[in-house]
Amino acid sequence: MFIAQTKAELSSHAQAWQKENLRIALVPTMGSLHEGHLSLVRIAKKQADKVIVSIFVNPTQFGPQEDLAAYPRNEARDRSLCEQEGVDAVFLPTPAEMYAPDASVTLMESTLSKTLCGRTRPSHFQGVLTVVNKLFNIARADVAVFGMKDAQQLAIIRRMVRDLDMPVKIIPAPIVREADGLAMSSRNAYLTPEQRQQALCLRRALDFAEVAWVQGNTPLDPVISKMRTLIEETPGTEIDYINAVDSDTLAPVSKLHAGVLIAVAVKIGHTRLIDNIVLSNTQH
Amino acid sequence: MFIAQTKAELSSHAQAWQKENLRIALVPTMGSLHEGHLSLVRIAKKQADKVIVSIFVNPTQFGPQEDLAAYPRNEARDRSLCEQEGVDAVFLPTPAEMYAPDASVTLMESTLSKTLCGRTRPSHFQGVLTVVNKLFNIARADVAVFGMKDAQQLAIIRRMVRDLDMPVKIIPAPIVREADGLAMSSRNAYLTPEQRQQALCLRRALDFAEVAWVQGNTPLDPVISKMRTLIEETPGTEIDYINAVDSDTLAPVSKLHAGVLIAVAVKIGHTRLIDNIVLSNTQH
Repeated sequence: MFIAQTKAELSSHAQAWQKENLRIALVPTMGSLHEGHLSLVRIAKKQADKVIVSIFVNPTQFGPQEDLAAYPRNEARDRSLCEQEGVDAVFLPTPAEMYAPDASVTLMESTLSKTLCGRTRPSHFQGVLTVVNKLFNIARADVAVFGMKDAQQLAIIRRMVRDLDMPVKIIPAPIVREADGLAMSSRNAYLTPEQRQQALCLRRALDFAEVAWVQGNTPLDPVISKMRTLIEETPGTEIDYINAVDSDTLAPVSKLHAGVLIAVAVKIGHTRLIDNIVLSNTQH
Repeated sequence: MFIAQTKAELSSHAQAWQKENLRIALVPTMGSLHEGHLSLVRIAKKQADKVIVSIFVNPTQFGPQEDLAAYPRNEARDRSLCEQEGVDAVFLPTPAEMYAPDASVTLMESTLSKTLCGRTRPSHFQGVLTVVNKLFNIARADVAVFGMKDAQQLAIIRRMVRDLDMPVKIIPAPIVREADGLAMSSRNAYLTPEQRQQALCLRRALDFAEVAWVQGNTPLDPVISKMRTLIEETPGTEIDYINAVDSDTLAPVSKLHAGVLIAVAVKIGHTRLIDNIVLSNTQH
């Protein structure tokens, strides 16, 4: 497994693979890898000849009050997990390697980034798009795999690929959960044992919505209202949002139907967790 | 010569060339081709195995009061000139082909785009960067050639390639001039015979600066002041700017030195013309 610390090292490898017409998949991560990330790697391996995992805690997607400094890092373990999964190259740049001090070109998204997490994290998706665009270019990615847990990120990256005609295929990967239903997240490491229990309210609320949909209850307000109650009755929680939107455009919907994304963001103590479901059309 | 009207047609050709490891050069134009454009094509042919010329009058880089509707178009002549020059593919998309109605991702530049033409054309370079980024992706360009007449555009595109780590080499091409020194421009077609004579004041002012530099006069203010006089004493002219800046960063300079870009923008009647020189270090 090749370890690249610099953009030049990674892109020279990627360029050589491209010249051999090998298909390159990129799995962009912020490290602190868990089973969710590893599931992305396994999907990537099926889609491409070479798999690159990038591990970069990108400062430009954190707000001034957010957890950049505290974000969990475990590079040695991450490397060893990638090696076990048969990853071909790991990219581990520093912020100084990624960004020139006078960098002045960024990407902007004007619609999908204004809702959900974008309301409380106003520059987050500008940071995400810019770094993902850079990573696609450095890795010469033909394919990139993103988890559906970050549903808004996935929609915005798909929009970037469409609007900039990027020659990259985006593969969405299903959410991976702990045995009790909590969506895997590097931020789960922040939770105390008590908060870990409280965090199950996200999944309980989403389960309620899914059951309502399967049972044919399509009016939205009572479902959202009950979800809100299920979370609020759990001590130590603070709801950021509970929203039902179109999973591609993220525009609000007025009733449940197939393709609707129901997304929640809840603070458990100081830890902000997100989770979601997309309603399937198998039931109706 | 292949004519592509759609992104899919061009990118399938480009992808096939890429698989054969052929080097692809892109020459982005707004059509109405003149000798300046053809010089870019000739440079491109030396740099690559396949040359693509895009002809697209990009609406998003024109301001509301600008000359989008009047901009000269001559597709049949453009095609025939490309054919004569041995171009491999011409890309002729419509605005509807280039932009989805709900397009929401754009590129932004926060430093170099604020000076020179950016002062009076506030969204111009956002439009330029976004369309050039798209064209690079569709054409799978390894190389792209840009004229030095649009010095600010060249600097901002180089900045984009650097800041987004795009795998594209940018080649600057020298300004091509008419016999009397007027820089070639599609917009010269707007000029009446009288205005055509008046337009020579841009070159006269730049010649003055170059001679001053060659003679060792490095203080800036008297040079700019004399340039201003040379343009103002020509009837029918209105100066937008005369600026001396670093040719890479476009930051203002306080005296003449090698690498300084002296750029002028002047309205002759309703037609806005630009021209520039970069001071060489051969004389000192």
